[in-house]
Amino acid sequence: MAEGIASRNSTDSFSDIGQELHQLLARLFPICRSITGNGVRKTLEILREHIPLIVHEVPTGTRVFDWTVPKEWNIRSAFVEDESGRKIVDFRRHNLHVVGYSVPVDRSVSLTELQPHLHSLPGQPDAIPYVTSYYQEAWGFCLSHNERQKLAEGKYRVLIDSELREGHLTYGEYLLPGETTQEVFLSTYVCHPSMANNELSGPVVAALIGRWLASQPRRYTYRIVFIPETIGSITYLSRHLHVLKQNVLVGFNVSCVGDDRAYSYVASRYENTLADKIASNVLSLKHPGFKKYSFLDRGSDERQYCSPGVDLPLVTLSRSKYGTYPEYHTSLDDLSLVTAEGLRGGYELIRDCIRVIESNETYRVTCHGEPQLGKRGLYPNLSTGRSGASVETMMDFIAYADGTNDLVDVSNIIGKPVFELQPIAERLVEAGLLEKVKEEKPTRPSR
Amino acid sequence: MAEGIASRNSTDSFSDIGQELHQLLARLFPICRSITGNGVRKTLEILREHIPLIVHEVPTGTRVFDWTVPKEWNIRSAFVEDESGRKIVDFRRHNLHVVGYSVPVDRSVSLTELQPHLHSLPGQPDAIPYVTSYYQEAWGFCLSHNERQKLAEGKYRVLIDSELREGHLTYGEYLLPGETTQEVFLSTYVCHPSMANNELSGPVVAALIGRWLASQPRRYTYRIVFIPETIGSITYLSRHLHVLKQNVLVGFNVSCVGDDRAYSYVASRYENTLADKIASNVLSLKHPGFKKYSFLDRGSDERQYCSPGVDLPLVTLSRSKYGTYPEYHTSLDDLSLVTAEGLRGGYELIRDCIRVIESNETYRVTCHGEPQLGKRGLYPNLSTGRSGASVETMMDFIAYADGTNDLVDVSNIIGKPVFELQPIAERLVEAGLLEKVKEEKPTRPSR
Amino acid sequence: MAEGIASRNSTDSFSDIGQELHQLLARLFPICRSITGNGVRKTLEILREHIPLIVHEVPTGTRVFDWTVPKEWNIRSAFVEDESGRKIVDFRRHNLHVVGYSVPVDRSVSLTELQPHLHSLPGQPDAIPYVTSYYQEAWGFCLSHNERQKLAEGKYRVLIDSELREGHLTYGEYLLPGETTQEVFLSTYVCHPSMANNELSGPVVAALIGRWLASQPRRYTYRIVFIPETIGSITYLSRHLHVLKQNVLVGFNVSCVGDDRAYSYVASRYENTLADKIASNVLSLKHPGFKKYSFLDRGSDERQYCSPGVDLPLVTLSRSKYGTYPEYHTSLDDLSLVTAEGLRGGYELIRDCIRVIESNETYRVTCHGEPQLGKRGLYPNLSTGRSGASVETMMDFIAYADGTNDLVDVSNIIGKPVFELQPIAERLVEAGLLEKVKEEKPTRPSR
Repeated sequence: MAEGIASRNSTDSFSDIGQELHQLLARLFPICRSITGNGVRKTLEILREHIPLIVHEVPTGTRVFDWTVPKEWNIRSAFVEDESGRKIVDFRRHNLHVVGYSVPVDRSVSLTELQPHLHSLPGQPDAIPYVTSYYQEAWGFCLSHNERQKLAEGKYRVLIDSELREGHLTYGEYLLPGETTQEVFLSTYVCHPSMANNELSGPVVAALIGRWLASQPRRYTYRIVFIPETIGSITYLSRHLHVLKQNVLVGFNVSCVGDDRAYSYVASRYENTLADKIASNVLSLKHPGFKKYSFLDRGSDERQYCSPGVDLPLVTLSRSKYGTYPEYHTSLDDLSLVTAEGLRGGYELIRDCIRVIESNETYRVTCHGEPQLGKRGLYPNLSTGRSGASVETMMDFIAYADGTNDLVDVSNIIGKPVFELQPIAERLVEAGLLEKVKEEKPTRPSR
Repeated sequence: MAEGIASRNSTDSFSDIGQELHQLLARLFPICRSITGNGVRKTLEILREHIPLIVHEVPTGTRVFDWTVPKEWNIRSAFVEDESGRKIVDFRRHNLHVVGYSVPVDRSVSLTELQPHLHSLPGQPDAIPYVTSYYQEAWGFCLSHNERQKLAEGKYRVLIDSELREGHLTYGEYLLPGETTQEVFLSTYVCHPSMANNELSGPVVAALIGRWLASQPRRYTYRIVFIPETIGSITYLSRHLHVLKQNVLVGFNVSCVGDDRAYSYVASRYENTLADKIASNVLSLKHPGFKKYSFLDRGSDERQYCSPGVDLPLVTLSRSKYGTYPEYHTSLDDLSLVTAEGLRGGYELIRDCIRVIESNETYRVTCHGEPQLGKRGLYPNLSTGRSGASVETMMDFIAYADGTNDLVDVSNIIGKPVFELQPIAERLVEAGLLEKVKEEKPTRPSR
Repeated sequence: MAEGIASRNSTDSFSDIGQELHQLLARLFPICRSITGNGVRKTLEILREHIPLIVHEVPTGTRVFDWTVPKEWNIRSAFVEDESGRKIVDFRRHNLHVVGYSVPVDRSVSLTELQPHLHSLPGQPDAIPYVTSYYQEAWGFCLSHNERQKLAEGKYRVLIDSELREGHLTYGEYLLPGETTQEVFLSTYVCHPSMANNELSGPVVAALIGRWLASQPRRYTYRIVFIPETIGSITYLSRHLHVLKQNVLVGFNVSCVGDDRAYSYVASRYENTLADKIASNVLSLKHPGFKKYSFLDRGSDERQYCSPGVDLPLVTLSRSKYGTYPEYHTSLDDLSLVTAEGLRGGYELIRDCIRVIESNETYRVTCHGEPQLGKRGLYPNLSTGRSGASVETMMDFIAYADGTNDLVDVSNIIGKPVFELQPIAERLVEAGLLEKVKEEKPTRPSR
């Protein structure tokens, strides 16, 4: 087992990891990302300052399962100008103003002609909505409903200086070898324009988790991918399905991990994978107010990773999950919604889960009956009928260390977190009272 | 799969099926039925106007499992006459007035001698109770408690002009072959005198379900039996046990399906048969206020069909179940308790269950990852982060179409009725995205 | 099956069993017991007046699993005397006054020197606590907090006239052979000084249960052990593990069975043994207000009997369990806390469980469909739609007598106690309607 990772005494200075995450996020925020294009490349380049990820380029037209890698999209500028020459909507002010994947346009239109190309949210009249049209050629602008209401009859010049051409889908991949080829898989996405929780929180947390992992001894191999959502995970799966099915022990899709509100996870299809078990254990004992979502509430790349025949043992870890918070997919999902504390909490959640995975062993007690802790200095000697909590935890651990329960099982049974059990396990192994059971870890959901 | 049955667009005109059921019931109502005799024959003869059922006659004395077919009972008239010659109780007024299977009697008795032969319900003083004595020779009269209270001291002439002799037990059977020899089995009973919910609702609904089935293509073979309760199902089982155990995929005992109140079912012994699964699915999604009864609440022919060693995969479908409504087994269970709307609801429940059975297939998605619905015109193209309900249902269906779930399983998981899923399945099979999985359906409760 | 044991008509006169238990307990109460020594021998000698148990002596220094049999401890007198010669604490007044296993001491100390050797309970200022130091050499006195508060500065003479030397650990064993070598195992402990519920209730109840068993025909072999807690059960297991694992069908640890309050049991590790099933069945149906404790609430010899690799199918049966009542492990656990009624209830609980074990058979109905009870005089003949409760129980029993359920399973399914079902089973076997199914009883928790 990789001592360093499982241990609580990390080399990370926690005093400022939240600040560091927030600063990195703020730097990436203005970039106009989409599922392809230079925004993704620029984002990966900045992340490479922290981890040496490999950038892959997959050509337009490549068949990926049921899909085809689309044309690459880039945009220089876009605006709607009124008759007075005032730019009433301008991509330069906010990159959400243009519908993602808009085809180029430059023409003069009446308000009536313009209206079908405008998108706003009457229920959130201050917010610019996030709209895309990846797979049907279209163009459009997004604006706050309040601004839209002000539009007068007249002529408008609409210009979108974009380009849709043969190019590439770009993604980043970071592989950290461990003692075994069994893998922990992290996936996050880099296809959203200027929104903070969904989704720059995922990539910045995943990048700094990668940096931390690089500094630690590792029992498992780690694979972290930074991809565009849906088409990116499908592309990645189409290239690596066999090895992922072979090696992935636990996977986490990391999304929306930056606000201050909920902790949550989206379960796998049958809620029976090791990822479900780990996430549920860590959240139950550390964040008991957490929210568990059914796979029916899915919406991110767990849709691909957990699809029939793919069936990776993966859950999505989040704070306020996509689709559940009012700022979701609007310009309100900004740098004030996501906080240093929120990001730090997201980071710690991923790290806690990884520590549990690294610590997770199955133990068996070596003697019949309870061992005599007293003669080993593990027990208070004067019996008063009331014994200390940690002795109780130790005895409970031993009672269930029968070779059938891993640390997470024991943790679930006795209600103590794995990080409390792991040092006890070490002391007891040292004292010769416990032995590790070698067992084939299941990598498939058993159903 | 039999397209016609599974489809919602039935050829039945639903505008008047309730009326037709009620009229048929009203026509059968006055007949004095018992577990044997001409009342059963007359009833089956009328049902034969709608479905070509075969009438079987089993001789008195035939051994049927632990039982023996009893003598045949017929009755011409019966009354209690007071000294003034007034018939104070008269079989001609209501056939419940005579205890079923009463032996012939013609004598003069005092009120004191008469009392042990009278039956009334102090708690329901207006109701004539339903009483029988099939297996011990006896005679008696039933009357309302109010009438009984009025009886004065004096002499009474009691006459029961009945006949108990070697004869037959009569039952009707209707077999509709389907594409496979696997069977759906319906059973209902024709042994009750003038009572409407329990039990003329069952035979009239089963008969018109039979007529509807005859007009439809059928994946499964259908077997509908019209029998006297208990001795009839035991007789039928003793003759057909092997073939029933071999072929019956799902069975429904149809009883008390005519009032306007509850929907309910009586589960099988271990609640683990396909019949339980179908009934629970249909009722949960269409009649969420339904009542599920344990097998401990049984009381009808499920007692035989689900007995150890017989173990047909069968539940009883009801509206207000026998024994649970105040009019049960009295003269108050009459043509006003059972309504056209009530009968129509009972009919639709059976038909809905049959449609689910006919539709029920196991599907597997043909691609890895989610399919691209957009390129097939199955998806709204402009993503706004909020997609339509039917796309969500389609995607949820695909997510669980992994070759291990039949339509009912998927329906239970995603909470949408089978009739919504079945057309989606067809579209997706057509689009090449789903394929049917051939699997051996279990016909036994797996325990 | 052993008719006599299973039957309700015991030869025991229940009118005074509670009194007899209480008198025996009162006689044993003053003896100063510990985990070794003459107090245990004296206790077993008195119990031998009721059952011919064999007394075993295991030498000091014997290795027993992870433990070693300690030195034997005996004590003649002990006191704390003030300067005026007044014995302010005196072992002769209450044997809880001296810390169990105190080494000899005879010296003069200041109050300051004395204090670390004193034990009292500020929260229960009238109670003398029960304190021991078996495995670390120490000496000390226990007294009420009120008395302790009164101690003035000054010199005190402390004397403990005890002896710690090579000797033996003593236990009693009572084996009653039955028709089979499969065993019911009862364990209780004899190591507590003058406390009544925890623990003289266990030995007195177990002894008179042994006497009752001796008077009965027995299907199973019975093994009853009277041991010191922890070291005693570990010693016993170390000598008999193989045969216990081979033969024990059900085991009960009997502790704290003498007060008037709760009924309870401590489940086995995975709550899946026959002992759990029996205890839960008996308590649910006879004492529905009972309390079930998880194995995490364990504290008595179930810790050894259910430890990994030992895994006897055993639960602890109690009234107010150790650790849950305020008088626990203090001088307040006395002859007024434990009552004749309370002890009788504990005795009946053990006896009821044994009767269920002895009665427990698996039956299968011999005919298809329901049997005709009427022709066998088992059914009221005039059907009024309302049948008697016992017929319903009989029919429910038959419905689940399919060869897969033992009497306890049927009892759990239909909610009637085994003692109601057992006579029905006998009648039905006599009538040829049920047959016993020979099945290998599981003796291991199946996990």
